[in-house]
Amino acid sequence: MAWTLAQIEPHSTPSSCWVIIQNHVYDVTEFLAEHPGGAAIILKYAGRDATQVYEPIHPKDTLQKHLPSSKHLGPLDVTATSTLAQARDSQQKTKDELRVEAAKGNRPPLSRILSLADLEAVAKATIPHKAWSYYSSASDDEISFRENERAFSRFFFRARVLRAVSWCDPSTTILGYKSSLPVFVSGAALAKLAHPLGELNITRASGAASIIQMVSSNSSFSAPEIAAAALPSQVLFFQLYKHRNDAIAAQRVRDIENLGYKAIFLTVDAVVPSNRERDIRSPWELEDIETGVPPVYEEGPEAQDGSGLGTAGALIMNDDRDMTWEKTIPWLRSVTRLPIVLKGVQCVEDALLAAQAGVDGILLSNHGGRQLEYALPPMEVLYRLRKDHPEVFSKLEVYLDGGVRRGTDIIKALCLGAKAVGLGRPFLYAQGAYGEAGVTKLIRILEREMTTGMRLLGASTTHDLTPDLVERVDWQPQLRSKL
Amino acid sequence: MAWTLAQIEPHSTPSSCWVIIQNHVYDVTEFLAEHPGGAAIILKYAGRDATQVYEPIHPKDTLQKHLPSSKHLGPLDVTATSTLAQARDSQQKTKDELRVEAAKGNRPPLSRILSLADLEAVAKATIPHKAWSYYSSASDDEISFRENERAFSRFFFRARVLRAVSWCDPSTTILGYKSSLPVFVSGAALAKLAHPLGELNITRASGAASIIQMVSSNSSFSAPEIAAAALPSQVLFFQLYKHRNDAIAAQRVRDIENLGYKAIFLTVDAVVPSNRERDIRSPWELEDIETGVPPVYEEGPEAQDGSGLGTAGALIMNDDRDMTWEKTIPWLRSVTRLPIVLKGVQCVEDALLAAQAGVDGILLSNHGGRQLEYALPPMEVLYRLRKDHPEVFSKLEVYLDGGVRRGTDIIKALCLGAKAVGLGRPFLYAQGAYGEAGVTKLIRILEREMTTGMRLLGASTTHDLTPDLVERVDWQPQLRSKL
Amino acid sequence: MAWTLAQIEPHSTPSSCWVIIQNHVYDVTEFLAEHPGGAAIILKYAGRDATQVYEPIHPKDTLQKHLPSSKHLGPLDVTATSTLAQARDSQQKTKDELRVEAAKGNRPPLSRILSLADLEAVAKATIPHKAWSYYSSASDDEISFRENERAFSRFFFRARVLRAVSWCDPSTTILGYKSSLPVFVSGAALAKLAHPLGELNITRASGAASIIQMVSSNSSFSAPEIAAAALPSQVLFFQLYKHRNDAIAAQRVRDIENLGYKAIFLTVDAVVPSNRERDIRSPWELEDIETGVPPVYEEGPEAQDGSGLGTAGALIMNDDRDMTWEKTIPWLRSVTRLPIVLKGVQCVEDALLAAQAGVDGILLSNHGGRQLEYALPPMEVLYRLRKDHPEVFSKLEVYLDGGVRRGTDIIKALCLGAKAVGLGRPFLYAQGAYGEAGVTKLIRILEREMTTGMRLLGASTTHDLTPDLVERVDWQPQLRSKL
Amino acid sequence: MAWTLAQIEPHSTPSSCWVIIQNHVYDVTEFLAEHPGGAAIILKYAGRDATQVYEPIHPKDTLQKHLPSSKHLGPLDVTATSTLAQARDSQQKTKDELRVEAAKGNRPPLSRILSLADLEAVAKATIPHKAWSYYSSASDDEISFRENERAFSRFFFRARVLRAVSWCDPSTTILGYKSSLPVFVSGAALAKLAHPLGELNITRASGAASIIQMVSSNSSFSAPEIAAAALPSQVLFFQLYKHRNDAIAAQRVRDIENLGYKAIFLTVDAVVPSNRERDIRSPWELEDIETGVPPVYEEGPEAQDGSGLGTAGALIMNDDRDMTWEKTIPWLRSVTRLPIVLKGVQCVEDALLAAQAGVDGILLSNHGGRQLEYALPPMEVLYRLRKDHPEVFSKLEVYLDGGVRRGTDIIKALCLGAKAVGLGRPFLYAQGAYGEAGVTKLIRILEREMTTGMRLLGASTTHDLTPDLVERVDWQPQLRSKL
Repeated sequence: MAWTLAQIEPHSTPSSCWVIIQNHVYDVTEFLAEHPGGAAIILKYAGRDATQVYEPIHPKDTLQKHLPSSKHLGPLDVTATSTLAQARDSQQKTKDELRVEAAKGNRPPLSRILSLADLEAVAKATIPHKAWSYYSSASDDEISFRENERAFSRFFFRARVLRAVSWCDPSTTILGYKSSLPVFVSGAALAKLAHPLGELNITRASGAASIIQMVSSNSSFSAPEIAAAALPSQVLFFQLYKHRNDAIAAQRVRDIENLGYKAIFLTVDAVVPSNRERDIRSPWELEDIETGVPPVYEEGPEAQDGSGLGTAGALIMNDDRDMTWEKTIPWLRSVTRLPIVLKGVQCVEDALLAAQAGVDGILLSNHGGRQLEYALPPMEVLYRLRKDHPEVFSKLEVYLDGGVRRGTDIIKALCLGAKAVGLGRPFLYAQGAYGEAGVTKLIRILEREMTTGMRLLGASTTHDLTPDLVERVDWQPQLRSKL
Repeated sequence: MAWTLAQIEPHSTPSSCWVIIQNHVYDVTEFLAEHPGGAAIILKYAGRDATQVYEPIHPKDTLQKHLPSSKHLGPLDVTATSTLAQARDSQQKTKDELRVEAAKGNRPPLSRILSLADLEAVAKATIPHKAWSYYSSASDDEISFRENERAFSRFFFRARVLRAVSWCDPSTTILGYKSSLPVFVSGAALAKLAHPLGELNITRASGAASIIQMVSSNSSFSAPEIAAAALPSQVLFFQLYKHRNDAIAAQRVRDIENLGYKAIFLTVDAVVPSNRERDIRSPWELEDIETGVPPVYEEGPEAQDGSGLGTAGALIMNDDRDMTWEKTIPWLRSVTRLPIVLKGVQCVEDALLAAQAGVDGILLSNHGGRQLEYALPPMEVLYRLRKDHPEVFSKLEVYLDGGVRRGTDIIKALCLGAKAVGLGRPFLYAQGAYGEAGVTKLIRILEREMTTGMRLLGASTTHDLTPDLVERVDWQPQLRSKL
Repeated sequence: MAWTLAQIEPHSTPSSCWVIIQNHVYDVTEFLAEHPGGAAIILKYAGRDATQVYEPIHPKDTLQKHLPSSKHLGPLDVTATSTLAQARDSQQKTKDELRVEAAKGNRPPLSRILSLADLEAVAKATIPHKAWSYYSSASDDEISFRENERAFSRFFFRARVLRAVSWCDPSTTILGYKSSLPVFVSGAALAKLAHPLGELNITRASGAASIIQMVSSNSSFSAPEIAAAALPSQVLFFQLYKHRNDAIAAQRVRDIENLGYKAIFLTVDAVVPSNRERDIRSPWELEDIETGVPPVYEEGPEAQDGSGLGTAGALIMNDDRDMTWEKTIPWLRSVTRLPIVLKGVQCVEDALLAAQAGVDGILLSNHGGRQLEYALPPMEVLYRLRKDHPEVFSKLEVYLDGGVRRGTDIIKALCLGAKAVGLGRPFLYAQGAYGEAGVTKLIRILEREMTTGMRLLGASTTHDLTPDLVERVDWQPQLRSKL
Repeated sequence: MAWTLAQIEPHSTPSSCWVIIQNHVYDVTEFLAEHPGGAAIILKYAGRDATQVYEPIHPKDTLQKHLPSSKHLGPLDVTATSTLAQARDSQQKTKDELRVEAAKGNRPPLSRILSLADLEAVAKATIPHKAWSYYSSASDDEISFRENERAFSRFFFRARVLRAVSWCDPSTTILGYKSSLPVFVSGAALAKLAHPLGELNITRASGAASIIQMVSSNSSFSAPEIAAAALPSQVLFFQLYKHRNDAIAAQRVRDIENLGYKAIFLTVDAVVPSNRERDIRSPWELEDIETGVPPVYEEGPEAQDGSGLGTAGALIMNDDRDMTWEKTIPWLRSVTRLPIVLKGVQCVEDALLAAQAGVDGILLSNHGGRQLEYALPPMEVLYRLRKDHPEVFSKLEVYLDGGVRRGTDIIKALCLGAKAVGLGRPFLYAQGAYGEAGVTKLIRILEREMTTGMRLLGASTTHDLTPDLVERVDWQPQLRSKL
């Protein structure tokens, strides 16, 4: 038996809530309370087709994994009445879809892409507004986001000349794994918002180029799907949001380990959702573009707040907000043999604690400026760590992400002791703009920029990148044009 | 008997000056010299209806209180000739009134308001030009005004991770009174210019949200009116401009105490009116908009200066310009048992003197940049005080106002030792834009921003906000977009 | 007998050069070599009427003083042929003259002028392009010019509260002479370019307001004319460009002393003309506006350079370029009993030498940014002098000019030890915009701003303005809007 | 026998590659691998006329020198079919050529050129897009390029007064050779891109003005051609890119010495091509302007990268990337008696090594910001060298290039110990805009600016330019308008 729209429509309340996803009907009434993204976003689509919003942000196995089969109510009757989705297909496309379609047709050839900024510009023009808003947004006034990148521009080189550099090797190891560049993909979520192949674009291009991908807990493809897309020899790390329930969390870690992931990057800078206004505004802007008439204020009880409706907020509702040094690190050590890296260390003091706690690495990061506004730029934290506690670098590996856009940025970080640097948004932009080819291009650009920069600096290997080669200047250089 | 316009009109000189207010006639000839705002502004309306300019800036009881009943000449004859006010009502509205009316109809729903900047933008669009000019103006080139806000952006966080923050309580006490947030309404005047319910909007929303309002001496509602609008348990403070006559001033303080106000914030940074050009220009701009033809220069004796006609100048003419540490603090102590806070301390030296003088608190403030241009930003004064004289914080409570626009601003101030922070303009904008609902929204935004910020910083209570969590950086970050 | 144009025209070469000025004919052939502004500018008008360019930059007595009567050839025959000047009068006016005429008619009333910036804006709109270019121009890229003003914005106040300020007196003495404000008119040339009464506007308004005018050597009115316009009790100082011939220079000083001037400000920062591009370009721009067709490059020997044609260059050709501490100061002491002030001291070292040399005062100045580009801003020099050599302030009086635009600027300079500050351009703009009334307005604005600032700072007299009240901050504030 | 187009066209592959240059046919198949600019750029013109791209960047003797005569296949049959070049001549010009033609006709007369910025503006308007792109481009985001110039603006003067300066001599010696100014032409390539006489314009004007030209290895005229254009007494230096083959490199040095060049400036900052995006984009922009339809992305194997096609990349493919202090300096000493200067020293440490190595001079330079992005500005390196190692200045001569645009820039560098400064781009712009007359003008401007600046600073000779006359300030001045 198949369900008709008329049968489904009444189930649109918290006491009985059904949704249609890919022409199947699900009863999610009992799941409402458990939904990591909160009940509100589901209720918005109660009794209706939710495929469009569901699909790009949930891996394929989500329903199987989280909803008992008794709640899988069966197929939609697509013969009788055309479903909402069908209806929608036959209608004209949204204005944003039309914009994207036109822009895709006008992308410049990859041979004309010279820099990560070029890739970002193409992405901005060609990916859906919702994707751009989610990727590019940062907290509050986006100060930390911009300062992350600006921080690099306060470091200048003391370039050395008359050193043999015809041979130049930018490769390194990360947690003992070979990497063709001191660069890895930093966990960045929901790649599918911008390209149907999403994270798989990144996995494939990284594998081919021998760099390491740290897979996000919020990938639009599941951890197994991504592992399956990797080359046999390819190294993947996993970015973990710890579930508040230790048992569930431990199972998650064991699953990951069994899938062959090589390290756990425990995220510690995102215990609560932050305020990303660009992302929150995005659906309103799309609505206004479609209707042409923005809603206006009416006296009376206030409608529900915008905050929390955004894509971002939906992702981490069940995270553990009470992780501690004393409890969480030993626990994680007890459930896995994988190396442990803390992702989101934001000050020197915590770098020291991490070394004491015996973790294998720390990723200096403020989540790309997406969590605590006015968190220090990671490059500034690295600088302070190198200056005040150089001993830490021999106790664990130090990485950094946030604001890396040029080969020289990478070189500066390595000079100050970073073992490697991560990039997040640029990979999302690259795959959104050109799919796998875009990611390959990105890596090639960084490789070219790095080897050029190393040679001009007088360095043949990453070991030659030492603190004396950089200087923090006391003035603020002019900005790159886009800042 | 009722007065006709023809009878009133001749009384338009300093030797006989009558005005019509709300269809009643008053002889203010002898009051001219005593008017806090000076005689000039009254003479401008001599022999005419002054209701429009009188009403938004004077509490209801003003005439009763300051003008002997013998000068209340009686009602206007509204039957015979239509009064000026009536005439005006039947006429078409001014261009600014039309603009406001249209803009009010287009206000976005409150659910789309994400930040204090959003509230300010709506206020700018929807409140009368005169209100905007009065609220937003600051001294001279408005440097201190802008630097107040910019100062916060030089402080970055050293965020701590792996601290339990699922429980997070941003509440505090101010002078022993419980406050749901370390935030209070800093005395800001003439709320009625922007909304008919003026300060009452603030009183009601603050009461509901359990935060404390410091009521301005220049409120458009009287101290009793505001007290009457408060909840029984609600805490109100009073911002005092001391009258030069000690007896009058003492009586004022006793009245306030009797009304149940819980503290006196003695304003010490506004002994003379300052130069607020935006406010002074405002009536000219309105005139020019109406007439379309700005006046031009003619040789001959110069017309009276603009300075002094502005709304601002009108308010504090009888203030005591000769207050001193030796005389004024003991005097105030002698007339009230209420806690005393000095509002407008602008340097470390005076903070030390305040501690010696035994006051209960100081409000580091430069009057929102509205008094001495180039006064140091309060956040910078707080920083110096914490660095050089940490002992002061145990002798009195230290507050700060000026430039606070985000939860992170509040957190930074608390980290450096502030017990709470005040906001002035944002409350005026919020009530102007949406009335009481706007004020409620403002408080909810700050609460959300504060708890998010505290958690991401690793802090569960305001006691966890310690100096080591912030760092004054040696570069100037990019500005928030509106600066 | 009167000369006809036909008779005059052939005398247009270096070997015989006649010019018409105010309908009289002069033979200036022998004077060409002596002209302070060089021969080129005269030859441009050889055989023609030069009144238009001659008049605004030469005092009335120039021809009498510098040209033997034998070279005064007699009147022009104005009956026969209309002179060039007449011809010109009957023609239509130049586009710039028409612009000025229209703009003058639209000047705002003085009551709407709130600041020196307002006066400057009116001047910019209403004075001839040539005048604006000459007044506003500065050297090279105008860096020192702009930095002069910006320097003040790095000084913030540590305002003191609870000090009695109802009585507030901003007056001071300068070289023992009473001044109602710590402000004087700094020598600024060619006021007539902008207003027919030129410097006399300044003299009269200064006299009425009891402030002191330092009269420029390059005034468009002569030293006697200006002295004659002053009140009997009025104090005037004289700004001297020393002629390279000591005898001529000594006579000049004695003449000045006999005219009753009270001090000699010897200019030491302008030994050669500088590169003021805005001024040099000005005649080209006017030509292009008239003709609509700018000239283009043609191969061949290059035409004479622009540099040197500018108004500025014309004024100081005979100055002494070899003045020294050893020779010049004793010489000047020997020829006058007047106090001697060095105008144009630009560093601490020279301030010390000046004190050793026993002069009565120094004016820290870089000539308003019009001479050496990248000379330190005077406010910065004052700061260094106060910090490193406070003893100097008791040996001589220290003044400053350059960039003063607000009362707070004056207060800051006084806090750091300046006895008074000079303003140049603002006086030229004020008189250009509104004549004497403009100058009066300027003084009133500064007085209001100063007393307001002093009171809000807790100061009753200039003696209360002490170094502890200002602080040089380590960030660069946002700029005033016009910078 | 002459070749027809039909015969040539098939030879358009790597296995048989012919090109037409100035109506002669060459077989360059075997040369492809040796081409310093790589094979790709030649193959683009295989089987076709390459004159247009070949000519402006290759000296006349290139084919004779690098291609065996057996590969000179003989003349093109220009009678039969019109050649491509002819065909092209008869066609309409490109849009860029038309633009240049029109702009050249509108150049302002040289008498209106006041500054190097003026010359640059005319060049920007009047030279081919390709030339502008090549000259103006710098690495990556062009930060070092802009910071080079900005660095000067952090140095202010402590001008001294009352010093005799009527006599003022800006001349100096460089490596013992007299120079009328402490200024030399820094090696800058491909002058012919902008003017048919290219470097010869510079040679002639420099000779007439008695300043020294350092001739680029990549000049569009050959070293002998330039030497031949020089005056008998004229001093020329040579900028050397060392060939990786020592024997070839030695021969090159000996040739240069025999031609009478007086010093070798060994370039050490350009061991690999850098990323100059403006230059790389230039041909695409020209194509797009012509066609109006930019190419778009198509899925499939990526076309060859843009990087490497740019003019810049073509020039230094055979350079020695393994130069060292130990090997290269002694080698160069062994093959020439000429003084040796290292061009491209970028830090204090290497300046010390250079002194130890016994070279005669160092040119502090980051190649005009065209090589390592974020290399410290040379003016900053000079400042550090003077501060930390003043002894170096007595061991060798120190020069600087990069960002010098004003006489005051030169003076600042000399104050800090530079013996002279080089300018590159400005000379290219000057000759491109006005040919030899432009270069003469440039030198006259610098001379005027220098002598004016020296006099106003109180200096008569370059020996008077001492470190105490400049101060590095702790704020960043406003920028010159063009930055």
